[in-house]
Order: sequence, then structure tokens, then C-alpha cells
Amino acid sequence: MTAVALRFDSAPARVEGRPRRSRLAGLLLLLATVLGAPATGTTADAPAGDLSSWNDGDAKAAIVDFVTRVTSEGGADFVAPEDRIAVFDNDGTLWTEQPAYFQALFAADRVKAMAPEHPEWKDKEPFASLLKGDMAGVAASGEKGIVDLVMATHADMTTDEFSKIVTDWFASAKHPRFNRPYNEITFLPMRELLDYLRANDFKTYIVSGGGIEFMRPMTEQMYGIPPEQVVGSSITTKYELDGDAPVLKREAKIDFIDDGPGKPVGINTFIGRRPIFAAGNSDGDYEMLRWVTTGSGPRFGMIVHHTDGEREWAYDRQSHVGKLDKALTEAEQRGWLLVDMKNDWRKIYAFEN
Amino acid sequence: MTAVALRFDSAPARVEGRPRRSRLAGLLLLLATVLGAPATGTTADAPAGDLSSWNDGDAKAAIVDFVTRVTSEGGADFVAPEDRIAVFDNDGTLWTEQPAYFQALFAADRVKAMAPEHPEWKDKEPFASLLKGDMAGVAASGEKGIVDLVMATHADMTTDEFSKIVTDWFASAKHPRFNRPYNEITFLPMRELLDYLRANDFKTYIVSGGGIEFMRPMTEQMYGIPPEQVVGSSITTKYELDGDAPVLKREAKIDFIDDGPGKPVGINTFIGRRPIFAAGNSDGDYEMLRWVTTGSGPRFGMIVHHTDGEREWAYDRQSHVGKLDKALTEAEQRGWLLVDMKNDWRKIYAFEN
Repeated sequence: MTAVALRFDSAPARVEGRPRRSRLAGLLLLLATVLGAPATGTTADAPAGDLSSWNDGDAKAAIVDFVTRVTSEGGADFVAPEDRIAVFDNDGTLWTEQPAYFQALFAADRVKAMAPEHPEWKDKEPFASLLKGDMAGVAASGEKGIVDLVMATHADMTTDEFSKIVTDWFASAKHPRFNRPYNEITFLPMRELLDYLRANDFKTYIVSGGGIEFMRPMTEQMYGIPPEQVVGSSITTKYELDGDAPVLKREAKIDFIDDGPGKPVGINTFIGRRPIFAAGNSDGDYEMLRWVTTGSGPRFGMIVHHTDGEREWAYDRQSHVGKLDKALTEAEQRGWLLVDMKNDWRKIYAFEN
Repeated sequence: MTAVALRFDSAPARVEGRPRRSRLAGLLLLLATVLGAPATGTTADAPAGDLSSWNDGDAKAAIVDFVTRVTSEGGADFVAPEDRIAVFDNDGTLWTEQPAYFQALFAADRVKAMAPEHPEWKDKEPFASLLKGDMAGVAASGEKGIVDLVMATHADMTTDEFSKIVTDWFASAKHPRFNRPYNEITFLPMRELLDYLRANDFKTYIVSGGGIEFMRPMTEQMYGIPPEQVVGSSITTKYELDGDAPVLKREAKIDFIDDGPGKPVGINTFIGRRPIFAAGNSDGDYEMLRWVTTGSGPRFGMIVHHTDGEREWAYDRQSHVGKLDKALTEAEQRGWLLVDMKNDWRKIYAFEN
């Protein structure tokens, strides 16, 4: 839970191909077909979408094969558009989660910014250690300490206030290794995959252990995913009047942890139907992968395996952040696609040459 | 809470005009305009959609005026399509909630069906009273008794099992006064309003005190609203393995009450942005109306006022079900439209002559 409570996300910029645009393209194509004009876009054999950052190989072929099957009208595996739901973990699946979850960096920055108003933190753990840059001391405060940090930085304010703090912070925060805003640390092949699925009438969701209100201010810009398609962990909120104005106050109480077995629960609560496509990268996604890839009809599970220590990071079974052990062991038995970052991705980030 | 926990819904049939179709129509119209062909659909002065069950008058004019303003590109009140979120209460707003919430009738029927497997219920309240048809005895068991009823009939099964029970029941249940399936007891003017808003690129949501998993199996058929756009009350669910198959088990524990001050909380959790249009009919919708109609930009709140004792029911301040008191008192001050069922609706149900 501690790792979970401290997860998550990033900065401004680039607007991805939006569902609206994709649908427009699809409809114009349909119209063109109806009118007898030559089709300039997709065919049944090659659905719309550009996966050019993926190397040609088994991984890309498996994705294209699945999408082709579920979108082929009259085919045995055809899935109606309203049931084409795809869910994506965020940290480590859509962007880099090393060396630390971005939400942890946010919490640390907030403690520093708020310290002048909290002189008592000089003598109170884990704040004292954090302010001295003693991360071992922070870790020593254990789960309770981490929860205290999260609550001090995420609660006791309105939802509007929190949204503004997060938005402002994302606009300036940079990744410690690449020194770039976080929206540039997203995985280009995964953004292409999101676009590709949407171009084929999938509805794409994020299902993350990160804070739902921490993610929502930027997922549209980063991934083309609107707030209502973001599922995440939450603290409770409460309706109150500020004078005559209604506000929602964020309380220092955990409401829901959207990680591990919480992910199928979150999917059921927020979406209310079982997705047919799931992508994750760690054991925190195991139950989501199980839930999505069980049941009738065609189903697709994929795991982003961090194998590229040069361009990104290489880690799996022994990692503290994004540990991938049980899901890696069972991937073959369960029929989940293992994406080998190093070999399957021609580019990882858009800024690479 | 007791009333809330026992709310809700209905049966099969009629598919409303779906967003997809509306968007297609809009795009073809746009294309036609671009190509210089005569527009056959909407104009800026009269947005698409048929409100033919509404009498011409102030109520209909106010709705059309609002929709015209927020969809007029370049106008002062224009709202981008992604922010055109509309939320609707269900019981008493989209369909009849008298003489009892439909979910209460469901619970009662379930107790009768399950009684043979529960001989102990003969001596246990509120089950004993219910099985004897002694509703006063049921009421005497108080809130705890009602919760016990709900839990006995809604919990201790998988989500898939519950969905099937609800679906089967809706297929046969009939309204006690009209002796018609519940999908026919929906308000025709409100279904037209949903269609009208969607034709103008609104995304329509149900935000109800009723059980979220009780509503979802039928909202698409009844209102053209898909499961992921239904917000409601819930009990907790838990991920488990049944042999090697993952299931979600419904537990006998209340998770969230989506009523009164819970409605803005539910809206924030599920949708993550503030709607610009809200419709309700009781004080249980008061906080939702406040939340939606506060804030910058154009906003619309409306209350369905049950004034037709002949065609439907007439009730407000003194009613046990759907009490409308505080919201009625403040409607004028808050600028909320009061819809007078008797005078504003030409037809209430589609089956009327």
C-alpha cells in the first residue's frame, strides 16, 4: 500500500490523436467508401493506426492480429465497438517509473514548499528526515510515515485547489535522469498503441495504483485519455459549504487502493463491464490481467518487460519499484504477450534520434 | 440511507437514439455544410433533437435556449463538447418512483424466492413480516432491518450472478399500477431530452441513489446510457479465485451511498469534472444541483415536479418517497427550472394515446 499511495504522474504539452479525430477519420472513410471514392485509409487486413516505433516482429504482429480479428465484421472473433474496452496501467507501462514514482517526487516537493508553514516538521518524522534529504530516514518511518506524508500533501484542501497545485507542479517538474518534462518520458510505442486502439473504436482507460486526482489533470494531454476514463487510488472527499459555495474537501483518509486485487474491483466499479484488452508491467497488474483475459470471446493481455538498461531501465523479479515476478512466471501459461522493450521497441521516447 | 439502499430500476426493450448515431449525423451534416450542400438537419437556432412530448412553453424554451447557447461556436456561452456533461437522477426523474422504489420490490421478490433455502427467516425479522406481507412489520424493523434485507438479496454472490438475477427479474417485473414492464414507465419527455442533449454532443450520465450494479444491466436499453456512465450506490466487492477462475464477490458491506451530499462526491470520483447540466426531482438531488449550477460559465439545473395526480402522481414536500422540500423552496433563488409535469408534458408515457 505504501508504494501504491506514493505513485504517479506528470507534465504538460503534446496532445495525442484524440478519439474524436480518429472517429471523424473513420466516418469520412466510411462515407468515402459508400460514395465509391477510393479509400485512402485502412483496410480490413491492416486496421488504421501507426505503430512505427514498434519493430516488426512477434509482439507487433500479435497486437495487429488481435485488433484485426475483433474488428472484422462477420468474423468469428468480432467484438461490438461498445465492448472494445482496453485498460492500461500507467507507471512503468505508459511511462518510466524509475528511479521513483513521480507521485513520490511530488509529495517530497510539496513537503519542502509547505515546510515554512509547518515549523513542527523539523522535529517530526518522516518530515524531518525528508527535509534533510535523508531518504533512509524517511524509509525508516515505515508505512505509517509514508501515509502521513501523502496525507499532509494531498489532503485538507478542496478538489479544485489540489487540481491547481498538481497542474502547476507538472508544468515545471522534470525527470531526474533525462531532465525533461514528464510528458516526454512517456513511451512512444505505447502512445501509438493507444492511438491505434482508438482508431479501431476501442475506448481506452488508465487503471493505475496512482492517485486518481493526481493523474486526471494531465492524462488528456499526455495520452488522449479524458478524466472520466482514469481509474486510480483515492482518499475520501466530502461535500461542504464554503459560505454559500459548495466545495469538495479532500480528507486525510484512504478511500480505495487501486492496485493488485483492487484493479479488477476498480474496473468493475468504474467501467461496469469486463475489458477485452489489458496492459501492465508488474505484479500489481497481475489480477487485472487475470480478470481481463478470463471469460468468453477474444482477450488480450500484455506485459511491458523492462529489458533495456541503456535507453531506459532493466528490472523485473528483484526490483523494489515495479516488481515483476509472478506475472512473468505465468505469462506463457496465461497467453500474455511479453513485450521486450529492448528488442520490440525501435524508439522508447519521442526525443530519441 | 435506508430509502437509498432500497432504490431502483427496470426491464428490457426500446433502444434510444445512441450517441454514435447522433455523432454520425452531426459529422455528415458538418461535411454537407463544408461541401456546400443544403443542410437537412439542425441549424444554430434550433439544435437537433425532438422534444415533441413537451408542450411549447417556458420550460421547453429554457432548455432549448441553454442548449443553443452552449453549442453556438463563437458565442459567449459556447462550451467545448468534452465539457458538455449532463447528469440525471433516475427514480422520479427519468421514471416513476411511486408507489415504491423498484429496487425495494426487487428485494421483496428475492426474499420470497429465496425463502425455501432459509427456513430460519420464518422467525427472523424483517424477513418474517415480509413473507407474511406485513409491510408495517418490515418498517418496524428500522434501518437495520432494511439493510439486512438488502444484504440478504444483493450480496454473497459474484457480480456475474447478480447481474443475471437482475436481468432475469427485470424481464418479467411489472409496475403495480400500470401492469406494464418498467421500461414503459420511463418518462417519454425525459428520454427525448436525453436524446436531444446527446444529439448536441452532451455526454449523459445517471447519478442515482439506486444500486449501481442494479441499474447497469438495463440503462442502455432504457435510456441509451452505457454501464460506464452510471453512477450509483454500492456495496463492496472483492477479487477471489473460484478454482483457477477469478471472480468478483459482492460482500455484505456498504461501500458508497450516492445520495444527497454523496452525489457531488460520486460525480467527482467517477467523472472527474463538473457537469454543466443536472436534472433531479427530490431533496436527494439538492447538493448535486448546487454543485453543478455553481461555477463559471453557463449552467443548467432542473427539477421534475410531480404535479400530475391523474396521469402519474402528485407529491412534493410531504412525500415519504421522493420528498421535494428544500430544493423546491430554493429553486427560484438558485435559478433552477421547475418542470411542471402536468402542464409542461404533453405525454408522460409512450403508451398514452
